[in-house]
Amino acid sequence: MAMTADGKIATANRAVSSFGSRRDQAHLLQLRATADAVMAGARTTDSNPITLGPGPAKYRRLRLRHGLAEFNLRIIVSRSGTVNPKAEVFQRRFSPIIILTTRRATASRLRELRAVATEVRIYGAKEINFPRALRWLREKWGIKRLLCEGGGELNDALFRAGVVDQLHLTVCPKVFGGRTAPTIADGLGAGRLARAAHLALVSARRHDDEMFFVYHVLRK
Amino acid sequence: MAMTADGKIATANRAVSSFGSRRDQAHLLQLRATADAVMAGARTTDSNPITLGPGPAKYRRLRLRHGLAEFNLRIIVSRSGTVNPKAEVFQRRFSPIIILTTRRATASRLRELRAVATEVRIYGAKEINFPRALRWLREKWGIKRLLCEGGGELNDALFRAGVVDQLHLTVCPKVFGGRTAPTIADGLGAGRLARAAHLALVSARRHDDEMFFVYHVLRK
Repeated sequence: MAMTADGKIATANRAVSSFGSRRDQAHLLQLRATADAVMAGARTTDSNPITLGPGPAKYRRLRLRHGLAEFNLRIIVSRSGTVNPKAEVFQRRFSPIIILTTRRATASRLRELRAVATEVRIYGAKEINFPRALRWLREKWGIKRLLCEGGGELNDALFRAGVVDQLHLTVCPKVFGGRTAPTIADGLGAGRLARAAHLALVSARRHDDEMFFVYHVLRK
Repeated sequence: MAMTADGKIATANRAVSSFGSRRDQAHLLQLRATADAVMAGARTTDSNPITLGPGPAKYRRLRLRHGLAEFNLRIIVSRSGTVNPKAEVFQRRFSPIIILTTRRATASRLRELRAVATEVRIYGAKEINFPRALRWLREKWGIKRLLCEGGGELNDALFRAGVVDQLHLTVCPKVFGGRTAPTIADGLGAGRLARAAHLALVSARRHDDEMFFVYHVLRK
């Protein structure tokens, strides 16, 4: 995830959500080239022309050198099943797309999504049961390393479910400000320190005015 | 300012707002020892038992070595003048306390504040006119270097006013999450990239799992 120095991933009006350097964009593609699957929330895939794919040929060769499939699997998460079936991500058929949702998704929505996605799975009544969903993704699809690219609501749900192993964070040299500007972990959040995710800083690299961090999430 | 890796300065319910290491707390006192005055918003001084003072004798000696007064001046900012006159900060009389407010402050509130503060000044109708206020602070009180310690609303107002020269940022190894959790720059924020504050990274130091940054704010 890339964020500003004040922890924002977009401006308050959401008009600006792309602000990392070209190096940060390359860094994201390098990260994708280490993952079996790339995951994002429905608002992220709806509102951006993104494919969640591996990108240019050099990154696909990198994947093959890493012993991975040339194209990563793609996973879209929506508790209510409100995924836009016309979104850019569905226009590109290079790899399976799996949608995770809950019993809140109506039958008509499920039908619509099953027409565009490879598989649509229900995990949970109102909130996604991530431990179960990730177990299934590993068993059925062989996904051992999963890269989640946000948004903040999905990231927060994954942190609260205790299923995050690493955080790759880029801090960009800007301050957006804004009480309603989204951050890398929105949603409900932790109410007390004991519930917060505690991290260990594995690496901190500086390139020009950007910082690239890798954190490990400590088990409680 | 200290924030979590997801950009928060407190949990969503505000129950946890102190999470930096002892090193970070010492770092804050070292910073105060470089400033003529320390500034905070009224919600910050109301809800915390803080004095905005220089701290233990070693930091006061540091101030003297820096050619500064032994005790820094203290500034509290409140657009509406709703500063609790019983707050801890007023119990300690080691240095002048200046309150900056706007014409939104009622006469009775101003009277109450003038009884506890050294000086109460009105700058602006609804929002503080920071360029004018800072000019007066320099001329009347000789304040050349001012350290603002938040909260996020005040920081954002200072960034939007274009009066911030440096950002000293500690990133702590935690993730709080939470859409409503405060960040170092809340308030209105920037609507477009051109309005955001653009920074240059002056230094990045790592101590254990914490990162200490100094940024310069670039002039537009």
